[in-house]
Amino acid sequence: MSAEPRPRPQRRRDTEYRLNHDVDVWVASASTTGAPFLVPLSFDWDGEALLVATPADSTTGRNLAATGAVRLGLGPTRDVSMIDGAVEALEIDALPQERVERFIAHTGFDPRALPTPYRWFRIAPRRIQAWREVNELPDRELMGGGRWLV
Amino acid sequence: MSAEPRPRPQRRRDTEYRLNHDVDVWVASASTTGAPFLVPLSFDWDGEALLVATPADSTTGRNLAATGAVRLGLGPTRDVSMIDGAVEALEIDALPQERVERFIAHTGFDPRALPTPYRWFRIAPRRIQAWREVNELPDRELMGGGRWLV
Repeated sequence: MSAEPRPRPQRRRDTEYRLNHDVDVWVASASTTGAPFLVPLSFDWDGEALLVATPADSTTGRNLAATGAVRLGLGPTRDVSMIDGAVEALEIDALPQERVERFIAHTGFDPRALPTPYRWFRIAPRRIQAWREVNELPDRELMGGGRWLV
Repeated sequence: MSAEPRPRPQRRRDTEYRLNHDVDVWVASASTTGAPFLVPLSFDWDGEALLVATPADSTTGRNLAATGAVRLGLGPTRDVSMIDGAVEALEIDALPQERVERFIAHTGFDPRALPTPYRWFRIAPRRIQAWREVNELPDRELMGGGRWLV
């Protein structure tokens, strides 16, 4: 069923490839009282953080602003990179033009153009794990405390 | 970019097809203090509820038992069915043999055989939404209060 487990350096390379090339990520957030939420959003990675945009008044927007905590799922269910991140909420006009253009080029989506008020959320990874099947659950920790372990 | 938006009856059929045939689902849970969590798990659908199994002492296991709340993501990011569910936690020997065998046949996974203590979690959908691209965001509500709306 399963291939040999990948060594951790390869899992880091595979994760960085996805960060640079994938467009969508699963975004799990929670209310301060423990109500879970989940949606797919488009993102852009600049080498240090993922940038996403969602309406300020949506469930995800309110959760991220209130808790500053997020867990992301990148890739399909049998080839995942899981990212726990620290969230910085930013007003829609708070980013440099260059950063916004980079986001639009990667996602095809301009959140400044919409009638609903959007916000930016900058997500800095603190912990990253990656696995495909059960045989890759050992050695899945690739980043802890915001630093690559491999 | 996008095809014509699907009518809601078709979205219900597509969602029920996934419930019957898919093996994995994204499971978002939260601690009582608002820490989000997310993992992919295998599931089996019996027509009324999704059955999943995870270690009783895992983050997901503890969150589901504590809050009774879950949000599931079925399908890839551009063809999702989102399910908000009510969770019932069950001890690993609490299900009829027939139900367990059905789960094993569908997922290829027997959680009773493992050294780590597992629990079953029975997830009854309360709200279901389905969309592919932005043009399907209207009309995405397919179930509310545990009843199909279409």
